[in-house]
Amino acid sequence: MRKFYTAEAVTEGHPDKVCDQIADAILDVCLKNDADSKVACEVLATKGTVIVAGEITSTYEPDVFGVIQKVLSEVGYSSEGVAMDTFVHQQSPDIANAVRESKEKREGVSDNQMDWFQGAGDQGVMIGYACDETSQLMPMPVVLANRIVRELSACRRSSYIEGICPDGKAQVTVEYEDGKPVRLDSVVVSCQHTEDKNLKKLEAEIRKKVLLPALRLLPPDDDTKILINPSGRFVCGGMDADTGLTGRKLMVDSYGSIVPHGGGAFSGKDCSKVDRSGAYMARYIAKNMVAAGLASKCQVSLAYAIGVAQPVMVQVDTFGTGNVCADDCLEMAIPLVFGLTPKQIVDTLRLTRPIFRQTAAFGHFGRKELPWERTDKAEQLRNAVI
Amino acid sequence: MRKFYTAEAVTEGHPDKVCDQIADAILDVCLKNDADSKVACEVLATKGTVIVAGEITSTYEPDVFGVIQKVLSEVGYSSEGVAMDTFVHQQSPDIANAVRESKEKREGVSDNQMDWFQGAGDQGVMIGYACDETSQLMPMPVVLANRIVRELSACRRSSYIEGICPDGKAQVTVEYEDGKPVRLDSVVVSCQHTEDKNLKKLEAEIRKKVLLPALRLLPPDDDTKILINPSGRFVCGGMDADTGLTGRKLMVDSYGSIVPHGGGAFSGKDCSKVDRSGAYMARYIAKNMVAAGLASKCQVSLAYAIGVAQPVMVQVDTFGTGNVCADDCLEMAIPLVFGLTPKQIVDTLRLTRPIFRQTAAFGHFGRKELPWERTDKAEQLRNAVI
Ligand SMILES: C[S@@+](CC[C@H](N)C(=O)[O-])C[C@H]1O[C@@H](n2cnc3c(N)ncnc32)[C@H](O)[C@@H]1O
Ligand SMILES: C[S@@+](CC[C@H](N)C(=O)[O-])C[C@H]1O[C@@H](n2cnc3c(N)ncnc32)[C@H](O)[C@@H]1O
Repeated sequence: MRKFYTAEAVTEGHPDKVCDQIADAILDVCLKNDADSKVACEVLATKGTVIVAGEITSTYEPDVFGVIQKVLSEVGYSSEGVAMDTFVHQQSPDIANAVRESKEKREGVSDNQMDWFQGAGDQGVMIGYACDETSQLMPMPVVLANRIVRELSACRRSSYIEGICPDGKAQVTVEYEDGKPVRLDSVVVSCQHTEDKNLKKLEAEIRKKVLLPALRLLPPDDDTKILINPSGRFVCGGMDADTGLTGRKLMVDSYGSIVPHGGGAFSGKDCSKVDRSGAYMARYIAKNMVAAGLASKCQVSLAYAIGVAQPVMVQVDTFGTGNVCADDCLEMAIPLVFGLTPKQIVDTLRLTRPIFRQTAAFGHFGRKELPWERTDKAEQLRNAVI
Repeated sequence: MRKFYTAEAVTEGHPDKVCDQIADAILDVCLKNDADSKVACEVLATKGTVIVAGEITSTYEPDVFGVIQKVLSEVGYSSEGVAMDTFVHQQSPDIANAVRESKEKREGVSDNQMDWFQGAGDQGVMIGYACDETSQLMPMPVVLANRIVRELSACRRSSYIEGICPDGKAQVTVEYEDGKPVRLDSVVVSCQHTEDKNLKKLEAEIRKKVLLPALRLLPPDDDTKILINPSGRFVCGGMDADTGLTGRKLMVDSYGSIVPHGGGAFSGKDCSKVDRSGAYMARYIAKNMVAAGLASKCQVSLAYAIGVAQPVMVQVDTFGTGNVCADDCLEMAIPLVFGLTPKQIVDTLRLTRPIFRQTAAFGHFGRKELPWERTDKAEQLRNAVI
């Protein structure tokens, strides 16, 4: 059976990603100075103005304007003449209490169950996924789309291509046959450029310097549609062309439109928010399942209730690729290997460290430097199942 | 095979939804006065402050502050003492040109192909879904979660329950057996309440006045976990507890975490943006497929490139439930029945009318009053296939 799957990626200069990076940079400085910081930081960036808002409870008071300026300049935008404003207040006392003392604790679980004392910071569903299509155990279109925007960004920073600017996007459609990627069907690239850049030349450079290296895993064939700057002109870009918000690139952050998503955003949130930590844990479990050879595709879904420690749903789906036991048997192995309360997740992956700024561009998954990408539980999982 | 699927819903008082409603109310007043308005309106609402930003090109200049106040008061919040600010500018001239003149037009399609003249307002993937689990042809957990928050809202407005406030959330997990919903596994409800509300009483009222009617389609059994206000206290709510942004309730707006999502947000965008209009069209196609009896589950995926009229991907997946022909045969029927250029979508569904404010709470799909919910193409589809 022939199927098509599409994934998008954006450069670090995309307005939504600029917001995500500012939010995670603020999170990181808070965590660096107070590992117990509770942060829910939202950012809006529009033509000439950046606004930071949200709920922050921390012994450290971040220099918000300083962080905004630093991120803008690191990304490649000028912060000159950019107006800034901030509307930050403390976390709701009701939520703070629900996180500090879970329903289980309030209702008297024993003192041996300290891992159950902390409640989830919100309700929600989180989905993790892994598959053996690529060495990162990520879907092929996601890997290719991210490579394109990484190459675009590298070409700009090194001036290997001249006259390109920070904003850019890519979209890759891959044809699958019987569940395996077999053909590159289409590629769309949009890259902001200077007024005087010759567009024919830019197209040739993107083909040679960006697409050729980025698409090595699955090169185009004669029928692959390649669209480069199909809008015809992309001089007005960044926040001048589009208003950015935190948490608006959910599919770019995760697995493209190939896998369902719980809906919760990541950036700007400390990991007492299960939206973020639950999604990381779900990826960690799914990736270890595939690394253990238990399935070639694995989707792990979790759901939580606010103020409750234990998840209300844990679910494994291998889409018929499980080759050792049924999905519900894999499911039963999870609690033997992974703790799923918010405290256990944060402890296992050490999520109070200031490691989040880097996640806010080029995807949260499939990057070996991140703790939820380790496959150190594969053997334990295999033993738990067999 | 046993599977669990979870969906969330929120009331119209949830901060993200307040933002969506303000954005769509602004869109509607623009469309009402200038059907050709190009609107990309983003809203941030935090404790004491609401900010509207974005790109609007319209002959009409909306009274942004007036709209904010109207929406806040209709939802049930006071706008007294709420600071407001607005950062609105025109659509990027480069994007405006790409929308006005598609790549096909620029490269000389014939004048008979006027439907191809308008380019897509962005790249992106959009997914539509339908299934025969409910009369709305929507997944059971989505229908149940939305019913709960609708009942909550009705109980507040009618004072059938006293002492409840506008902010609220629900989450429903349903157990499936062989692809059919068979059991209600868990329900989570959080509802903002006044300081002096007795929480035992509130719980009893929510069980009787909200859950009993809302869950009639699939009532709880003795093993159903029901969690009502599991955080223990929810007095601080709305924008006092959480900062809202437009476009941050993607799964609540669509099919829960049951179906993949393209990632593009809906509210605040006029329908030259395929993020929105493409998702509506994909639902329209999927729903007509199921209504035609061609499949019991149908997912339609579209992908576009900015400035291009025709989609770069059209894909149908019936997950093995197609009972007349294979998925690629259904796919081939689509162009015989539906036009997929941005202009054709807007014309078919008449999307320049000011109908969007109502979509910004309680979900964009499964509501019979909306044009993409019609099943008037079912017969034509059946004829095209057989
Ligand atoms: C097309 S804009 C979204 C629509 C926009 N808010 C409007 O008012 O029309 C989304 C993204 O596309 C990219 N973009 C902006 N201008 C573009 C252009 N002229 N050509 C291609 N892509 C562009 C940027 O990455 C931008 O963040
Ligand atoms: C929990 S808040 C998100 C986290 C928050 N930004 C923070 O700083 O902790 C998300 C949503 O949960 C709901 N909520 C707020 N306070 C709550 C409470 N005390 N109990 C249950 N739900 C609550 C509201 O609908 C709110 O928009």
